[in-house]
Amino acid sequence: MSFKPISDIGEFGLIERISSIVAPTCETKPRLLEGIGDDCAVYELSSSTVQVATTDLLLEQVHFDLLTTPLQHLGSKAISVNVSDICAMNAKPSYALVSIALPSKASVEFVETVYSGMSETATRYNTALAGGDTSASSGGIVISVMVAGEAEKERISYRKGAEPGNLICVTGSLGGAAAGLKVLMREKNIMLEHIKHGEKYDKDVMSNLEEYNDAIRQQLLPSARIDIVEFFHRHDITPTSMIDISDGLASDLAHICKRSGVGAHIEEGRIPILSQARHIADEFQDDAVNYALSGGEDYELLFTLKEEHFSAIASHPDITVIGKITPAEKGLLLSDIYGMNIDLKTIGGFNHFRKKAQG
Amino acid sequence: MSFKPISDIGEFGLIERISSIVAPTCETKPRLLEGIGDDCAVYELSSSTVQVATTDLLLEQVHFDLLTTPLQHLGSKAISVNVSDICAMNAKPSYALVSIALPSKASVEFVETVYSGMSETATRYNTALAGGDTSASSGGIVISVMVAGEAEKERISYRKGAEPGNLICVTGSLGGAAAGLKVLMREKNIMLEHIKHGEKYDKDVMSNLEEYNDAIRQQLLPSARIDIVEFFHRHDITPTSMIDISDGLASDLAHICKRSGVGAHIEEGRIPILSQARHIADEFQDDAVNYALSGGEDYELLFTLKEEHFSAIASHPDITVIGKITPAEKGLLLSDIYGMNIDLKTIGGFNHFRKKAQG
Repeated sequence: MSFKPISDIGEFGLIERISSIVAPTCETKPRLLEGIGDDCAVYELSSSTVQVATTDLLLEQVHFDLLTTPLQHLGSKAISVNVSDICAMNAKPSYALVSIALPSKASVEFVETVYSGMSETATRYNTALAGGDTSASSGGIVISVMVAGEAEKERISYRKGAEPGNLICVTGSLGGAAAGLKVLMREKNIMLEHIKHGEKYDKDVMSNLEEYNDAIRQQLLPSARIDIVEFFHRHDITPTSMIDISDGLASDLAHICKRSGVGAHIEEGRIPILSQARHIADEFQDDAVNYALSGGEDYELLFTLKEEHFSAIASHPDITVIGKITPAEKGLLLSDIYGMNIDLKTIGGFNHFRKKAQG
Repeated sequence: MSFKPISDIGEFGLIERISSIVAPTCETKPRLLEGIGDDCAVYELSSSTVQVATTDLLLEQVHFDLLTTPLQHLGSKAISVNVSDICAMNAKPSYALVSIALPSKASVEFVETVYSGMSETATRYNTALAGGDTSASSGGIVISVMVAGEAEKERISYRKGAEPGNLICVTGSLGGAAAGLKVLMREKNIMLEHIKHGEKYDKDVMSNLEEYNDAIRQQLLPSARIDIVEFFHRHDITPTSMIDISDGLASDLAHICKRSGVGAHIEEGRIPILSQARHIADEFQDDAVNYALSGGEDYELLFTLKEEHFSAIASHPDITVIGKITPAEKGLLLSDIYGMNIDLKTIGGFNHFRKKAQG
């Protein structure tokens, strides 16, 4: 009997297999309005309100590296990436459950620092850390966070509601997280080289990373855009679709288009790029637009809006219109700064389980 | 600077530290009725209904061993242990989120088998598998499950409501999970010995485990007692306190007593022990009562009841009264079959992070 390696079908293929196995458990629950396939599951609480819920697993050496991640930031990011999924539904977080598995090397102070980061960040999002689980780990640290949030049913933005003619918008500026990671990896390698050769690695030999602060911050301490959700609620705007940018703009826009059955046309020149990401890309002889398109982890919001709502967002300093939704048959296109159209599907995003040859 | 190893304060010490760090995030959320400290977090949905939510992290080599655990059972148990926490609040499950991290050795068929076990068991509990996360793992398999449930606010049973004079009851029979684990570990060691010596290990040399089926089943395929919750709801019974037996009867009764500020007096002769657990204990020259008191993982319910409700439960074939709640100053006592009183606090339960010398 032969077994199929997961890399043969990739992360999204695996999720499709899992979806079809668990589908029968969802079909008998009419109150489950959305299962696998969006940023959150959506569960009806009453005729007018829903709960949204999401979970993320963070593993040492897969999702974070303690050589480049301060513990306080690790705790903060674990909360933010989940709250970001809540925001991507146009909802606000209520409470979180946190599980942690600890190797024997972990000290009490270590755990306290991680939870301090979580607690401080949860307070910022008005989210209660309501419970969880602690366990030993025979490998590295494992953190699992689940966040539940709430919204009026009619305010929820799914991935599936985009329609031709809708404006495509992003918040903040992109590419910072990928650029910050580049700098952190370079510094890590410098450190490891010093250690390997028995040379000291201290303040005197460390690079001055201050000029990269914004990008490193975007990588280590991303913020969930709850301020944007509050802006939407205040102005009575419900995006026709929304997702948070965790895999990269190209891949996340493709998720919206696939679920909505539409195409998209965005313009490279309109994509807001973090200025430090441009400097870092220059240093590494990369293209900063690629950081934005396929770097991921910026945790900004990507959403679509009926054109009539343009005036409501036009004056917001942190929302940028980057293109328009098109009929499905037009495909996913990026017009580059020379006016050439590039097929966005040829630009990958982050994918666990991809074949080695691909990434 | 010196760091305190977690084994210095143990699992419950660690949970206390975490509770105090996250407390400020809960204090500003009046709708969070219960945070860390019970089987579930309790969140108010309306003036009459609450949501309960729980999460558990399962790690390969810490919580399960693929040499002795069929994948289908692994998936089933991951759901059951969480639904058991929902039942321990006298609530019923609504939906679950499941995260899984997979080492490169895992195949597509492997994942499908685990999720089939989850799906089948979730269907039995009328619980939707509504979402989750998939990821690569650089170590073993990690499964994180979160389950949310619902109940009328006045039906919820906390750990903290036991009062002197209340009857102490358990469901089912105990000790099976620990006894089953003993048999599985013995078989695993036989297998490893065969492999070590280059001898074949197949059906001909495998022990016939049929006579241990009930105990092994309790270990590998525990059931959450949702039938008991339904019985309570049907008979309008709300236990004054309740917990599921995951750490062992002694330890879990101590949790109820600590949170309720009471003592307890139980009788060894009344503790329902799985008859196979007695046979297995004889084989291993163990005491089956110890499997029940400190083995854990039976996932039966331990609850306290006002005496006036005795008649309602008296005829239930699967509920046994094992003692009475006493004032706190009486302590936690077990009368053994010779009438001697033993301090239950001297009998430990399961504790991650315990010092090596202790366990």
